[in-house]
Amino acid sequence: MNLSEMSKEQLISFKNETEALYNDFKAQGLCLNMSRGNPCKEQLDLSLDMLNVFDDGKFMSESGNDVRNYGLLDGIPEAKEFFSDMIGVNNDEIIIFGNSSLNAMYFAVQLAYNKGVLGGTPWSQSGKLKFLCPVPGYDRHFKVTEFFGFEMINIPMTPTGPDMDMIEKLVAEDDSIKGIWCVPQYSNPQGISYSDETVKRFAALKPAAKDFRIFWDNAYCIHHLTESPKPILNILDEAKKVGNEDIVYIFGSTSKITFPGAGVAVMGASKRNIDDLKKALGISIISYDKMNQFRHVKYFGTFANMCEHMKKHMNIIAPKFKLVCDVLKKEIAPLGIGSWTEPEGGYFISFDAMNGCAKRIVQLCSEAGVTLTGAGATFPYGIDPDDKNIRIAPTYPPIEDLAKALELFVICVKLASAEKMLSE
Amino acid sequence: MNLSEMSKEQLISFKNETEALYNDFKAQGLCLNMSRGNPCKEQLDLSLDMLNVFDDGKFMSESGNDVRNYGLLDGIPEAKEFFSDMIGVNNDEIIIFGNSSLNAMYFAVQLAYNKGVLGGTPWSQSGKLKFLCPVPGYDRHFKVTEFFGFEMINIPMTPTGPDMDMIEKLVAEDDSIKGIWCVPQYSNPQGISYSDETVKRFAALKPAAKDFRIFWDNAYCIHHLTESPKPILNILDEAKKVGNEDIVYIFGSTSKITFPGAGVAVMGASKRNIDDLKKALGISIISYDKMNQFRHVKYFGTFANMCEHMKKHMNIIAPKFKLVCDVLKKEIAPLGIGSWTEPEGGYFISFDAMNGCAKRIVQLCSEAGVTLTGAGATFPYGIDPDDKNIRIAPTYPPIEDLAKALELFVICVKLASAEKMLSE
Repeated sequence: MNLSEMSKEQLISFKNETEALYNDFKAQGLCLNMSRGNPCKEQLDLSLDMLNVFDDGKFMSESGNDVRNYGLLDGIPEAKEFFSDMIGVNNDEIIIFGNSSLNAMYFAVQLAYNKGVLGGTPWSQSGKLKFLCPVPGYDRHFKVTEFFGFEMINIPMTPTGPDMDMIEKLVAEDDSIKGIWCVPQYSNPQGISYSDETVKRFAALKPAAKDFRIFWDNAYCIHHLTESPKPILNILDEAKKVGNEDIVYIFGSTSKITFPGAGVAVMGASKRNIDDLKKALGISIISYDKMNQFRHVKYFGTFANMCEHMKKHMNIIAPKFKLVCDVLKKEIAPLGIGSWTEPEGGYFISFDAMNGCAKRIVQLCSEAGVTLTGAGATFPYGIDPDDKNIRIAPTYPPIEDLAKALELFVICVKLASAEKMLSE
Repeated sequence: MNLSEMSKEQLISFKNETEALYNDFKAQGLCLNMSRGNPCKEQLDLSLDMLNVFDDGKFMSESGNDVRNYGLLDGIPEAKEFFSDMIGVNNDEIIIFGNSSLNAMYFAVQLAYNKGVLGGTPWSQSGKLKFLCPVPGYDRHFKVTEFFGFEMINIPMTPTGPDMDMIEKLVAEDDSIKGIWCVPQYSNPQGISYSDETVKRFAALKPAAKDFRIFWDNAYCIHHLTESPKPILNILDEAKKVGNEDIVYIFGSTSKITFPGAGVAVMGASKRNIDDLKKALGISIISYDKMNQFRHVKYFGTFANMCEHMKKHMNIIAPKFKLVCDVLKKEIAPLGIGSWTEPEGGYFISFDAMNGCAKRIVQLCSEAGVTLTGAGATFPYGIDPDDKNIRIAPTYPPIEDLAKALELFVICVKLASAEKMLSE
């Protein structure tokens, strides 16, 4: 029975029953963490053979550089060749960074802030600064622009990507808007992939600010949860078609392909952008870890092999996503107190509770020993205007633990919803 | 015979003979690079066993974190314990970075520039900015402060360190001076180690700018070229004694201990500084490469073992330093056309030619196939006011090649000196 159809008495009795279940759970003293999109141990074990690739004693890059030594600021040529396939750019349109694409994004933002884009005025001297943030989105993106003092503007997501009408209108009118955060494939947290039309409209954006950049964080580009994934359009190709290739910075990494703590992050962009970025990058570092770059290239050999490798990840985590969706469908759907996404890739399931319930649900879970991503984290400044969105990260716990955590989660959703309805 | 004592005729004949030797050399078509302080292949091979430390299949840090996964922003506890010994700080006074201490220094400068130090006014909003630069010094240090628009002030080096009278006076008077670059042990390029008095005076500095920081790049802290090295004082300890512990940022790395391209860099400072830096660091990255941190700790085990390991480096490179000094002593000393340092550690020999000759010597070498560090590189803005300093980096070439390059070098010094004297 839908909760909204219950009488007050039925609601009270529902709440009391749920509360009893909740208290039983609390007594179990659980301690589970579902707060971040961490791969599980089985996933980490998939790439262990990568640690042996130097058994051949070969450290020379085809460039003639020993990867163990200094040099090659923007990466070894083998890594540029390999990763340009992953993010869909040419070999001269890429920089190989360290282990963190977030760090590459921070670098790009601080550089534009301090020194401008392609010789333009530094953002720090451009007066008021604004950034567009499709919501719900990735908290660590928002933290970067918050850190640099941007006013962040929420852009609603649709099933085909962010609201493009709104974006086109805003950027055309307001030259204080300097960029937008995008996770175009399997968006964090909803798992939405941008439609061809959305990518084309992004590629053709004509912002008032000439130094506007799309931060295209393609973190989950090959992180499918289905045997027949639907590719998204290549934004740099589309931008080139309309003479707009400087508008986008593309990011990617192997954090969820090999090791989150020891992967390789990359950035792609037009050659003009890359050349400009490299000049500044050379002030801050001599080279990133080229042994780890070579390790990745030697291990996978080809991009096709890396895609094949991703199927092993899928086999481990797809059942966890299915479990979440099954439990929600069984326990929450009939009550009409929540909606969620069923992503075909990525790392998250986005759950929308009744308005005003997300914080309470996360608090209830936490008090019973299950840590979720903080409510509000998926919005700029940590403020979800409807207090409804919760990001579920199902990959890390063993499936039995996940089942246990979900059992608690649905109890907390029910309890918070009943509390809310009774208070109104 | 000293060149200054030669008659014009003698000088002309000296120049002609030298020129003939030079032209013979040029005809050999050499191609040697002595421009950077790169370890040689034999040195890179010393740490190869480090690549096998995960054969035990153990990836769990004592913190309970799998080093392959996300987390531990400031490093695994094992690495903090290990590296705090290297740079002389406590375990809570250190951040473990990626593979580049230069990158850590850039981070610290850009952070102070954008957000201030310990909650103070951002340097970018503090009006005129100045930075003290002991000269000759490290070009990459100077590039960072040049990039952020600092006026750089040359501070002469003395055999006991930078001119402390000048530094004390300047920082006391001028609150636009925000910091100083120091390589306290085996300075780059002179190989000078700061005396106890110098370290104490640094530790006790009372700058007008409360956000003044000493950038103490202890890059060569265990990189000795003698069996009985003289330790320098611990600046953080000395600063604590006088209640001044926030004044210094300490940097170090294993770039010249294990692999330049894949080492571990660290930063030490007072707990107050570290806590402040960590907050901002967490905006830019989730964690650095913890597998590489663990690789280093597992391989060496103890700091004492790492010091022992450095003797193997010494055995490889000390003969190269000796060769340079021997050749200069034999070929240059009698002519009175140059002076140089005989360092007890580090990576460089600093050669001072006659005033106005450094650029010409580097050019002559280059045209005959030997690349040296650009003349002027050891000074801010690349401007050596006397055009006399050349940084010699003897570690990289095989010793036969080094001997060949030195043969050319002394010919170029002689030729440039004779040209100079004849033109006056």
